[in-house]
Amino acid sequence: MKEEAIIKNVSRHIKLDEMEKNYFVNLLHHRILKKGEILLKYGEVCRYNYFVINGCLRVYSVDEYGTEHIIAFAPADWWTSELYSYLTESPSENIIDTLTAAELFEIKKQDMEELFVRIPKFERFFRILFQNAMVNHLNRLKQVLSIPAEERYIQFIKQYPFIFNQIPLKYIASFLGVSPEFLSKIRNKIAHS
Amino acid sequence: MKEEAIIKNVSRHIKLDEMEKNYFVNLLHHRILKKGEILLKYGEVCRYNYFVINGCLRVYSVDEYGTEHIIAFAPADWWTSELYSYLTESPSENIIDTLTAAELFEIKKQDMEELFVRIPKFERFFRILFQNAMVNHLNRLKQVLSIPAEERYIQFIKQYPFIFNQIPLKYIASFLGVSPEFLSKIRNKIAHS
Repeated sequence: MKEEAIIKNVSRHIKLDEMEKNYFVNLLHHRILKKGEILLKYGEVCRYNYFVINGCLRVYSVDEYGTEHIIAFAPADWWTSELYSYLTESPSENIIDTLTAAELFEIKKQDMEELFVRIPKFERFFRILFQNAMVNHLNRLKQVLSIPAEERYIQFIKQYPFIFNQIPLKYIASFLGVSPEFLSKIRNKIAHS
Repeated sequence: MKEEAIIKNVSRHIKLDEMEKNYFVNLLHHRILKKGEILLKYGEVCRYNYFVINGCLRVYSVDEYGTEHIIAFAPADWWTSELYSYLTESPSENIIDTLTAAELFEIKKQDMEELFVRIPKFERFFRILFQNAMVNHLNRLKQVLSIPAEERYIQFIKQYPFIFNQIPLKYIASFLGVSPEFLSKIRNKIAHS
């Protein structure tokens, strides 16, 4: 059953009884997407939270020179959204698309709000989720500010081996904030060291 | 009453009755610190959440070349901690100190856990707090990856006018990931444009 993945994910931090599971599962909208499909366009308001069952999404922006900057990857078993747009209901400055064929659940914002009221345990679940996400992002920010690109790449491979095998190098370069050419040089250097 | 600031902060997202307020206030440990005092040393386990009543804290790391990198500022009315160390109970790779004289409340981790169990509304409070913090940090990461330093500096002044007036330029440079010399050039350029 496709809902098993998300129930298992949620069960890491909270225990749900059968009624609560049913209520939650009924809020989920299942979607199957091809590689390269856009979930959220530039300028659109983000009205969903996404849970990735399999495949890999990315959240990215495009700067004034047309360069893409990857803000986040969302591989299987991850939650994602375009939080700023979602919270403020303003047009998104970022885009969400699929880097591979993907299967996911989406939950509407109003259903999420209702879920928090009906089953307050989900406050705990998302509190822990955001708390952990903050740790990851602070760590990444620290790396971007202080660690040379070569070391960041090595840490990336360790941290996201599943992504590393799934997606082209140029996306990893964008995530690390370096050019694909520079990342190629790093890879060659590591391969010959 | 010094507890008013923190109650007001919490009341932005949840409503507490008198009993709940009393329970919460009893967990707070009030501290007065001088400028330059260290709250968390490198290698120490972070066992507290901090709420700044007034003054300004910073969370920073020192790289192998001795260069400081500011990960976060915590001015008045902000919460902070060294989340990774706090959550995993591992030695902190970052340092927390005061950039100005400061007054704050600290709450022990075990008291926080108990608070979540006793008054689950606090799950909601911290869920919203972490959610908003994530938005800020994603925004900052996007800026570091894609926006020129000059524009980042202008946005910083708009976003943190209170910090801008309180602390030396070198700390702002560190936060923005540029050298103090480079930031001076930017400032001169802006002043003469």
